[in-house]
Amino acid sequence: MNKNENKVPVEISARHIHLTQENVEKLFGEGYKLNSLKKLSQPGQFAASETVDVVGLKGELKNVRVIGPCRLFNQVEVSITEGRKLGDIPPVRVSGDIIGTPGILLRGPKGEVKLDKGLICALRHIHMSPYEAKSFGLKAKQRVSVEIFGSRALIFHDVIIRVQPNFKLSFQIDTDEGNAADVGLGDFGRLII
Amino acid sequence: MNKNENKVPVEISARHIHLTQENVEKLFGEGYKLNSLKKLSQPGQFAASETVDVVGLKGELKNVRVIGPCRLFNQVEVSITEGRKLGDIPPVRVSGDIIGTPGILLRGPKGEVKLDKGLICALRHIHMSPYEAKSFGLKAKQRVSVEIFGSRALIFHDVIIRVQPNFKLSFQIDTDEGNAADVGLGDFGRLII
Repeated sequence: MNKNENKVPVEISARHIHLTQENVEKLFGEGYKLNSLKKLSQPGQFAASETVDVVGLKGELKNVRVIGPCRLFNQVEVSITEGRKLGDIPPVRVSGDIIGTPGILLRGPKGEVKLDKGLICALRHIHMSPYEAKSFGLKAKQRVSVEIFGSRALIFHDVIIRVQPNFKLSFQIDTDEGNAADVGLGDFGRLII
Repeated sequence: MNKNENKVPVEISARHIHLTQENVEKLFGEGYKLNSLKKLSQPGQFAASETVDVVGLKGELKNVRVIGPCRLFNQVEVSITEGRKLGDIPPVRVSGDIIGTPGILLRGPKGEVKLDKGLICALRHIHMSPYEAKSFGLKAKQRVSVEIFGSRALIFHDVIIRVQPNFKLSFQIDTDEGNAADVGLGDFGRLII
């Protein structure tokens, strides 16, 4: 097998926040709605114009981007490097799996919210549609590896497959992982099944 | 082969600076000598009490630790995450291979120094003594892989072997790599030859 087979585009997820509508209103004001600044690669998702400060016991992260639309739960996704700066190292979790994760303080222009849970480092994963999953012979929640070529070549193990009808094929890693592998948008990994 | 074979202790190299005696004096004052704060794992090397600020076009890194004793060249080792903060992404290089690398401004308590080169991201490597190299069947400058187990399991390729009589066995990676693999001091990797 060569590096042109099973190619998967790499995407780096920088730190970001998912919020409930209730918390958007606590942070930005009553009746406030998120505004779309830029569409994201995953259909329907957008980077909002709005940002909040994430305040830890040791340090804070300024202007962390909110991702819309609102969700039914609150989740703050940071790298381990950023978690160390906050003073709270986030557990590595699949998005949405926030039971038992640390809480964190959010500061917006109109108020603060103390989350009782939701600080995570996202488990690396591949988004794909059911059609793409079928063509690779993969199922949701299966774990695969992804090889990266270049100046900091490596193989990421334990990459979880996430399948949804509106997902577009992409290998999603955080900034620590992107920098450790020296890859970014426009680069490709090779799926090892 | 299982994970208990070919074990190599992991060490994370946080950002640090090597300086010539001439630049120590420019930054800290005439005739100034570095003071040892803490011995490092590699015999003879120490973390100095002294720190300097590294100033880029976009941002700066405060209180970056100087490593002693002085060397014949100046070198600033940062992660790619930190390079992005400075506004200058460092090339991935073997320590000492600084021709053509970016310069950077250093600010000490008694003066500033503008290096014309020396900003690098250290190429991941394994330090070993000639005896250890022989026992693994390895030679200096050979490249191997190292597997990491745990919550963010992966295999680092292109790990360069560095052999010196005073080197102690350790797999040296930067903070991005350590965080991407979720490993730290006390953890082990498995050498894949």
